Amino acid sequence: MEFILRGQARPKLDDKWRVALAPKFRDQMSPELVVVCEMEPCLGVYNQQDHDQQYQVYREAPTTFAQVRDFKRFLLADSENVHPDGQGRVPLTAEQRQHAHLDKEILVIGCGDHLEIWDPDVWSEYKARIRSQYANFDGSILPQAVPAATAPTPPSP
Amino acid sequence: MEFILRGQARPKLDDKWRVALAPKFRDQMSPELVVVCEMEPCLGVYNQQDHDQQYQVYREAPTTFAQVRDFKRFLLADSENVHPDGQGRVPLTAEQRQHAHLDKEILVIGCGDHLEIWDPDVWSEYKARIRSQYANFDGSILPQAVPAATAPTPPSP
Amino acid sequence: MEFILRGQARPKLDDKWRVALAPKFRDQMSPELVVVCEMEPCLGVYNQQDHDQQYQVYREAPTTFAQVRDFKRFLLADSENVHPDGQGRVPLTAEQRQHAHLDKEILVIGCGDHLEIWDPDVWSEYKARIRSQYANFDGSILPQAVPAATAPTPPSP
Amino acid sequence: MEFILRGQARPKLDDKWRVALAPKFRDQMSPELVVVCEMEPCLGVYNQQDHDQQYQVYREAPTTFAQVRDFKRFLLADSENVHPDGQGRVPLTAEQRQHAHLDKEILVIGCGDHLEIWDPDVWSEYKARIRSQYANFDGSILPQAVPAATAPTPPSP
Amino acid sequence: MEFILRGQARPKLDDKWRVALAPKFRDQMSPELVVVCEMEPCLGVYNQQDHDQQYQVYREAPTTFAQVRDFKRFLLADSENVHPDGQGRVPLTAEQRQHAHLDKEILVIGCGDHLEIWDPDVWSEYKARIRSQYANFDGSILPQAVPAATAPTPPSP
Amino acid sequence: MEFILRGQARPKLDDKWRVALAPKFRDQMSPELVVVCEMEPCLGVYNQQDHDQQYQVYREAPTTFAQVRDFKRFLLADSENVHPDGQGRVPLTAEQRQHAHLDKEILVIGCGDHLEIWDPDVWSEYKARIRSQYANFDGSILPQAVPAATAPTPPSP
Amino acid sequence: MEFILRGQARPKLDDKWRVALAPKFRDQMSPELVVVCEMEPCLGVYNQQDHDQQYQVYREAPTTFAQVRDFKRFLLADSENVHPDGQGRVPLTAEQRQHAHLDKEILVIGCGDHLEIWDPDVWSEYKARIRSQYANFDGSILPQAVPAATAPTPPSP
Amino acid sequence: MEFILRGQARPKLDDKWRVALAPKFRDQMSPELVVVCEMEPCLGVYNQQDHDQQYQVYREAPTTFAQVRDFKRFLLADSENVHPDGQGRVPLTAEQRQHAHLDKEILVIGCGDHLEIWDPDVWSEYKARIRSQYANFDGSILPQAVPAATAPTPPSP
Repeated sequence: MEFILRGQARPKLDDKWRVALAPKFRDQMSPELVVVCEMEPCLGVYNQQDHDQQYQVYREAPTTFAQVRDFKRFLLADSENVHPDGQGRVPLTAEQRQHAHLDKEILVIGCGDHLEIWDPDVWSEYKARIRSQYANFDGSILPQAVPAATAPTPPSP
Repeated sequence: MEFILRGQARPKLDDKWRVALAPKFRDQMSPELVVVCEMEPCLGVYNQQDHDQQYQVYREAPTTFAQVRDFKRFLLADSENVHPDGQGRVPLTAEQRQHAHLDKEILVIGCGDHLEIWDPDVWSEYKARIRSQYANFDGSILPQAVPAATAPTPPSP
Repeated sequence: MEFILRGQARPKLDDKWRVALAPKFRDQMSPELVVVCEMEPCLGVYNQQDHDQQYQVYREAPTTFAQVRDFKRFLLADSENVHPDGQGRVPLTAEQRQHAHLDKEILVIGCGDHLEIWDPDVWSEYKARIRSQYANFDGSILPQAVPAATAPTPPSP
Repeated sequence: MEFILRGQARPKLDDKWRVALAPKFRDQMSPELVVVCEMEPCLGVYNQQDHDQQYQVYREAPTTFAQVRDFKRFLLADSENVHPDGQGRVPLTAEQRQHAHLDKEILVIGCGDHLEIWDPDVWSEYKARIRSQYANFDGSILPQAVPAATAPTPPSP
Repeated sequence: MEFILRGQARPKLDDKWRVALAPKFRDQMSPELVVVCEMEPCLGVYNQQDHDQQYQVYREAPTTFAQVRDFKRFLLADSENVHPDGQGRVPLTAEQRQHAHLDKEILVIGCGDHLEIWDPDVWSEYKARIRSQYANFDGSILPQAVPAATAPTPPSP
Repeated sequence: MEFILRGQARPKLDDKWRVALAPKFRDQMSPELVVVCEMEPCLGVYNQQDHDQQYQVYREAPTTFAQVRDFKRFLLADSENVHPDGQGRVPLTAEQRQHAHLDKEILVIGCGDHLEIWDPDVWSEYKARIRSQYANFDGSILPQAVPAATAPTPPSP
Repeated sequence: MEFILRGQARPKLDDKWRVALAPKFRDQMSPELVVVCEMEPCLGVYNQQDHDQQYQVYREAPTTFAQVRDFKRFLLADSENVHPDGQGRVPLTAEQRQHAHLDKEILVIGCGDHLEIWDPDVWSEYKARIRSQYANFDGSILPQAVPAATAPTPPSP
Repeated sequence: MEFILRGQARPKLDDKWRVALAPKFRDQMSPELVVVCEMEPCLGVYNQQDHDQQYQVYREAPTTFAQVRDFKRFLLADSENVHPDGQGRVPLTAEQRQHAHLDKEILVIGCGDHLEIWDPDVWSEYKARIRSQYANFDGSILPQAVPAATAPTPPSP
């Protein structure tokens, strides 16, 4: 079973705009990370290996589709390979801070296979929206095309 | 064959808002649990490994779908890894108690792969509703949208 | 090849509302049983392992579907793990007796992978109905929509 | 290759309503048989193992479909496990004799995986009907749903 | 590679209505044969093992379909297991001779996996019909309705 | 890799109506051949093993379809197993010569898995027709239903 | 990984109408080649093994389809197995030169799995056409009709 | 896990129109590269092995489709196998520079499985376009036919 990141932490960005990852998160992650701009206004911190894997599906996709060519560039152009220092501090680029509207106060969220760095207020609004969305939810989260791709091998009866 | 949790128990929350799991439940579960907010107004208590597995399918899902990004945060943001103490007492957060409308009197239900913690009155209403729903039931419980068979076939190489 | 339960027996409930399983049935079953309320007004007695297996497909089903959440609770809420005593006596709960309209006189039927406990009159009416239904039967018993869904490729977990 | 029962025999029921199986049939069958009521007015005699196997597909079928629950009871309720004695005599229940309209004179037919016991006149009428039905036959015997279940691996190119 | 029977022979039925198989045919076949009535007015002579195999697909078919029950009886009711004697003579039943309109003069045709016994005149008419049918043929011989791909995935065993 | 027959030869039929196969063809073929009538007015010469294999797909086809029964007889009724003599001479039957309009002058064409024997003039007309047909061709040669059934496993890149 | 032929060369046909393959091409190819007429007005030079493989899919195709019979003859009738001499010179037939409009000046193009021989002017026109065709291309090159996955699996027996 | 190229570099073309690859890129790539014209106005630099692999899918495609024949020529006609010298300098052809509008100032982008060489201004415009395109993106990047083919192997349950 791979690790799953859960829970939260509220570190501050230091004056070099670095974020110190809490031990409970850091201990589960490898020393080789990737910081990326998520589609929402927040940053993602992945084990490099996981982000590499996420990229694999597009690596295999036929490049004769314009959107495939575009997305591969989007996914990698502004990402950075980073190595936390001894205190687990991770540097952010100016562009990344802009993208996530980050000031000193930040919120770090365990998001399963990666961490996310949010501005606390941006997070509060976002969370309120999805909470209401999932009350009494009845349906599939997965897009139709996906089940087969992700179905595990069946439990032997 | 994995364990299956069945039956019920009626413990009380102690003054530290902890719930003591009955031995018949505790003995089947691992010492590493996860407490989560279910979609219904109740709490779920999972073996960490099982909840991790439940998360796997979303871990693999393409993050270019907004709902996939939203749900991964929903599933993990308010969950907590907990370790029952020697008496099998599990701590609940204030937010979790709120979500399930819990007071001192609670009902713990074996729900197969996990336990659920309900307010007894909330449970009674809920049970009456589903009982009537399944009398002379004729059909499938499983959503039609899910079968792997409906996934698109791959292109030729 | 797994065992198959066939044939009938007509034991009586004892004054402790216990049912003694006939040796021809008992010898094929394990000492770990589960008594459940069937959808028809009768009780099912399963090898715990078999009932656990029956549950597996729902265990794997995506819990984002309300009916999946409901059914898992229905399937397990009122079931009981029981161990027949030396005479193969199985205890029934009051609620189970009510569900099956059971008095002292009962009918135990071998039903392949499980036994069923019926009130003799309820059974007679039920049997007459299905006998007529299957004379000159031409078609499939299996629901067309379901096979793929229930085949070893399970819905995503 | 499993055995295939072919041809016919015309034994008589003895005064204990037992049928003696001809050696050419008996030698191919196991000592553990099952006598069942077929859907047509005749009886089937199966190797217990084969009838058990025939049952397997229903054993796996989802019990949330009423017809699946009904058929499992139909298939097993009136079947009997029997062991031919030294002369290969198989006992029939009164209900079974009724179902097949059997008197002393009977016809035993090899039917591939099982034997069938018919009243000679009932058989003659039945055979005339199907003979005419198959002259110049052009089509599939198998219901559409079945091929996949039985398709062999294609001839290797 | 299995054997393939080709070519022809023109033996006569002897006064015991036996047909002597030509060595070129006999040498490729096993000593255990089955004589059956084909759907056309001719007889088929199969290696018992092949005819058994042909039967397998129906053995597996669900017996809840009336046509499956009918056909299994049709396929086996009038077939006979035969062992050619030292001269390779195969006995035919009166009913089989009737079915194929056979007199002394017969034509034996190699038909791939089996031999067929025809009345010469019946064959001539039949051949003229199919010859014209296949001149400039463009299409598939195999019935489109059959591909396993169109069948739902079978219920899990 | 199996052999592929290419190119041409222009032998003459000898006075016993035998065709001598050119060494470049003969050396690639086995000593066990089959001569058949093709659907076009020409003859096919196959390695017996290949023609046997071509027959396999029909051997497996359900014989309850009239066309399957017809075609198996068509494919084999007039085919002959032949063994070229020391000079590689292959005998043709009178019926085969008729079918292909053959006189002394013939054309032998390598056709991949088999040879074909044509009358030179018949061939010239035929070739002119297909040449024009394939100029600027854009599409699939294979009938839609067929690829999966007959496509060889692709060469591993 | 198999070899991939890239780039170009501009040899001349010698007075015996032979083309000398440039070492960069020759070194990657086997000594056993096949020269064929492509559908466009150019010649293809393949490793014999690759062209054989290309033929395999048609070898397996059902010959009851007229187009399959036609194409197999088209693919092989005018192809030639050739062995370059010490200087890597490959002979062309008069018919092949005609097909590609070849004079002394020729262009040899690496085309991945094979070489192509073009008249320089014919190539220039052809290239201009496809260049414009692929600017901002968005879609699949592979014909949708082809994936083996969409074809039915072979008929069940 | 294969390497993934990320980030950027801003080398200059030297007076021989060579581009020096930054060590962070060069160290991950093999000494055998291929320079190609991308569909957008930029150049791609691939490990030869990867570009070869990208070609495989078309190598297998049926050449009876005109677009397949056209694209194979497009993909390879103007590509060049190159070996960076000791300083990691890669030569570009005049045609390649034209295609990408390259002057001295260039931008090299890590694009996962390959590098891309852009004119800085062309890149800025291109990036602005796709950034806006992916804000709040909700859908699949992959053409419908692709997911199953390229999905990662599922997590073992």
